[in-house]
Amino acid sequence: MEFIIYLAGEIHTNWRDKIKEEASRRNLPFRFVGPMEKHDLSDDIGENILGEQPNAIFKDQAASDINNFRTSVLMNKADIVIALFGEKYKQWNTAMDASTAISSNKPLILIRPEQLHHPLKELSNKANVTVEDVQQAIDVLSYLVE
Amino acid sequence: MEFIIYLAGEIHTNWRDKIKEEASRRNLPFRFVGPMEKHDLSDDIGENILGEQPNAIFKDQAASDINNFRTSVLMNKADIVIALFGEKYKQWNTAMDASTAISSNKPLILIRPEQLHHPLKELSNKANVTVEDVQQAIDVLSYLVE
Amino acid sequence: MEFIIYLAGEIHTNWRDKIKEEASRRNLPFRFVGPMEKHDLSDDIGENILGEQPNAIFKDQAASDINNFRTSVLMNKADIVIALFGEKYKQWNTAMDASTAISSNKPLILIRPEQLHHPLKELSNKANVTVEDVQQAIDVLSYLVE
Amino acid sequence: MEFIIYLAGEIHTNWRDKIKEEASRRNLPFRFVGPMEKHDLSDDIGENILGEQPNAIFKDQAASDINNFRTSVLMNKADIVIALFGEKYKQWNTAMDASTAISSNKPLILIRPEQLHHPLKELSNKANVTVEDVQQAIDVLSYLVE
Amino acid sequence: MEFIIYLAGEIHTNWRDKIKEEASRRNLPFRFVGPMEKHDLSDDIGENILGEQPNAIFKDQAASDINNFRTSVLMNKADIVIALFGEKYKQWNTAMDASTAISSNKPLILIRPEQLHHPLKELSNKANVTVEDVQQAIDVLSYLVE
Amino acid sequence: MEFIIYLAGEIHTNWRDKIKEEASRRNLPFRFVGPMEKHDLSDDIGENILGEQPNAIFKDQAASDINNFRTSVLMNKADIVIALFGEKYKQWNTAMDASTAISSNKPLILIRPEQLHHPLKELSNKANVTVEDVQQAIDVLSYLVE
Amino acid sequence: MEFIIYLAGEIHTNWRDKIKEEASRRNLPFRFVGPMEKHDLSDDIGENILGEQPNAIFKDQAASDINNFRTSVLMNKADIVIALFGEKYKQWNTAMDASTAISSNKPLILIRPEQLHHPLKELSNKANVTVEDVQQAIDVLSYLVE
Amino acid sequence: MEFIIYLAGEIHTNWRDKIKEEASRRNLPFRFVGPMEKHDLSDDIGENILGEQPNAIFKDQAASDINNFRTSVLMNKADIVIALFGEKYKQWNTAMDASTAISSNKPLILIRPEQLHHPLKELSNKANVTVEDVQQAIDVLSYLVE
Repeated sequence: MEFIIYLAGEIHTNWRDKIKEEASRRNLPFRFVGPMEKHDLSDDIGENILGEQPNAIFKDQAASDINNFRTSVLMNKADIVIALFGEKYKQWNTAMDASTAISSNKPLILIRPEQLHHPLKELSNKANVTVEDVQQAIDVLSYLVE
Repeated sequence: MEFIIYLAGEIHTNWRDKIKEEASRRNLPFRFVGPMEKHDLSDDIGENILGEQPNAIFKDQAASDINNFRTSVLMNKADIVIALFGEKYKQWNTAMDASTAISSNKPLILIRPEQLHHPLKELSNKANVTVEDVQQAIDVLSYLVE
Repeated sequence: MEFIIYLAGEIHTNWRDKIKEEASRRNLPFRFVGPMEKHDLSDDIGENILGEQPNAIFKDQAASDINNFRTSVLMNKADIVIALFGEKYKQWNTAMDASTAISSNKPLILIRPEQLHHPLKELSNKANVTVEDVQQAIDVLSYLVE
Repeated sequence: MEFIIYLAGEIHTNWRDKIKEEASRRNLPFRFVGPMEKHDLSDDIGENILGEQPNAIFKDQAASDINNFRTSVLMNKADIVIALFGEKYKQWNTAMDASTAISSNKPLILIRPEQLHHPLKELSNKANVTVEDVQQAIDVLSYLVE
Repeated sequence: MEFIIYLAGEIHTNWRDKIKEEASRRNLPFRFVGPMEKHDLSDDIGENILGEQPNAIFKDQAASDINNFRTSVLMNKADIVIALFGEKYKQWNTAMDASTAISSNKPLILIRPEQLHHPLKELSNKANVTVEDVQQAIDVLSYLVE
Repeated sequence: MEFIIYLAGEIHTNWRDKIKEEASRRNLPFRFVGPMEKHDLSDDIGENILGEQPNAIFKDQAASDINNFRTSVLMNKADIVIALFGEKYKQWNTAMDASTAISSNKPLILIRPEQLHHPLKELSNKANVTVEDVQQAIDVLSYLVE
Repeated sequence: MEFIIYLAGEIHTNWRDKIKEEASRRNLPFRFVGPMEKHDLSDDIGENILGEQPNAIFKDQAASDINNFRTSVLMNKADIVIALFGEKYKQWNTAMDASTAISSNKPLILIRPEQLHHPLKELSNKANVTVEDVQQAIDVLSYLVE
Repeated sequence: MEFIIYLAGEIHTNWRDKIKEEASRRNLPFRFVGPMEKHDLSDDIGENILGEQPNAIFKDQAASDINNFRTSVLMNKADIVIALFGEKYKQWNTAMDASTAISSNKPLILIRPEQLHHPLKELSNKANVTVEDVQQAIDVLSYLVE
């Protein structure tokens, strides 16, 4: 039995690689999917495909069409969602993806540094599990197949 | 025919009053609900009811239980959700509520200042309508009953 | 017991008035809702609220945001949907609304002139009832409360 | 991980072959399904199986039973729907299939020539992505697995 | 609090009147809806509205369109469904309506004479309550508001 | 791509074998499931497992628990349901299974001899396709993969 | 705006009266529903309506048919569910009702004495709010309308 | 065709092994999943991953987060749920899991000793099948594939 895990969150650091490596090291039966991690491509994909847009807002709109398309297709396939929040960035798309997971009955692990507990308290309250780092998230995943 | 509208977003400014007054001025058949707007009470409600908690994180957890309970009950009643984002605060609970509205097939109006277009692009893309201020949101609501 | 009926279809002729008058004449317990019927306003509503858009496509996009918002809110309230197709216009939004009604388990009456039977055969097949004119649609509605 | 894609739209040109060839050329993990593409068979299938019908309307009705059956079975299997609109034909079944995809939470790519933007504005507004040709649709699909 | 009750079953005897009278006698807060009880009208409604059909099968098809439309609208409104089976008639539409109630999470009371227990065993097994006559059904309804 | 087909209907004749043989002869990618076809076992299974019951009604109740369990598990797996009605037997469980298929969005083929058109008109109206014999049902299935 | 609240839990003490009185004292816009509170009637209702059953198990089965019918009808009407656990009794039906509330997206308040925290930890974890007595539950309800 | 079966219930005896061995002996195409069966690990998993908690209640809360996460992921995969109740323990989580199965349309077999019939009567009433021991449960499973 294999589990598909969608990794929602920022695409500026390599946190996804850490999860994948650790899962591989522990031989866990997980397959990971997630958003486009090449940041420039993620921002430019709308104009790359549809051509130049009138201004930055419309450029963003074209890109978000395609990024949300990708997220919807892959999250539909997922058994589990992990959403990571960090100190930087607004991360409203991460909150949106985490909330979509909850509404779709996909179990959700939230990763956030302790100091973010206050602004994330409502989302943490709805997540199945809240942990503080990637290592703890892997520990939760491991428990699944123990 | 009356419409119930849940007003999601920060509780530090009086933006909800502006919407209510304008709706009243235009005689619109809307009833507004939303989160607890007394900020201190919203933070303290967990300890107020359940007693002192071990630390700030558990205090937050107790409060979010009850705040999410309120939001769930009232949003279940709502026909429409309006979510406002501003320059300040993390507002991840607002993103969560907006996303819940989308998943629950409740039409969503997003209000955000133009300069926030980039971090809100994915959520804006899923909202039914994105506007820049409270006045435009009321204009959209008015169109409903014209 | 009152029934709310969403009237989907073109907004260039007064077919909705005929239904409303006949329902009123027969004292039927129906309340009718539908799209914005002022055609210019329907096309301009996006720019009216959000300001001038870069070109005709973006103008349309802004308008459709708000028109779809209206349709979603009102169709959520509806017990029944009537969709009328005529000889003129593409009417793809009518087909979309009719299909949404079917997917939402809202009983659907399709009105179409006999000569359109071929291109509408799949949609007619999914509708609960297909009739040829407004008078027959009212007859079906009347049967509901006989 | 393989994705099943339902290709909705007219069956008079070979646009589906172009998508399949390009997907094959790029080695994309997609499997394509769609409506019966033999146009005469699609029109005659009702009478072929059930025998001669009283007139053209009933012949259409018998055919649409079986065509909708096929569409329902295959669309239930699909992860993604692509709907193509062209200049010719009423294409109300395409609009119906596209709307069914939206209601079923199946991500939707809409292909339409730019000049059709006005009559398709509401459907385009609900689609995840709107593009202008088959090549752009393949580009969106490719982004999914990059 | 009022409850709407759909009364599914044959339309040749006056069993619905007995339920309505008893509910009225006991002052129960119930409103009853159901299929067209004028048997001839129920059979002829298709041709009455749509005109003469090619043969008896198509006449039936036209009538069932409109009868199912009525059932769908009224059952959507219902809180409870009562389905009565008797010795006569095929009553497959009653079984269909009862099964629809179960699938729609509408509590179902099945009324059947004891001697029908064998052919109704699977449907009885899915119903919330199975009773043997109208009087017992009213007793179950009364328990609801005791 | 394989399709799982649940074959609902009486278990006194070998109509399922005919479908399976024809599907096999035509090399169709279908796997068939259905109710227990050994009639005595189907009636006795409750007492076989749970021991003697107080009377025939309770014996039936125990059997229907287990027969409905089987049907639910296998129908959940099915992509398509075929329901066959014949001249004999009450067949209310077949009507129940057919209606469950419709409510669960599982495409349904109804097989019934022409002379049963009147009592089956409402169920036929909701089925995707109604045919008169097993051969026609296989023809519809074949069309799916042509 | 009125809220309907289903009060699940044991029927041997008068805890429901305390909630109703306090809600009345505070003028809260709540209407309370719940299971049959006359304990003997609740146990005997099956035999009262359906006649004597073969043994205690079948007597229980007949009663539970009707008790579950009542619960289903009333819980479908409810906006909120409160489930109370005490020291005595198995209370598996309370756990079942609480879990049904969660699955039906009905916000749930769990009341349990502190010493029951261990056996209720999984259910408490899924409830929106867990409190220790009736007074705290009323405090949570009050917060809803503050 | 393989079936995944979630085994809900106490983790103090080896009843799951009996089911697995018997299924293996009979060559049944079943794969079994269930909760963490190492009792200490199940209680300690929260603190093991998240560190020491302020007291026993918060320790339980942390553990139940992760135990419910495991249950949700695995039950989402399951085709069938078996829930066993014994004489000992509160077993409210078992009742919760059984009720979740019912709400999720996953067929449920309840195992309970006869003497527990009274407190389990409502849950038994909603289960598909109630049996008295593991052997009977396996007999029901076997019937599925006979």
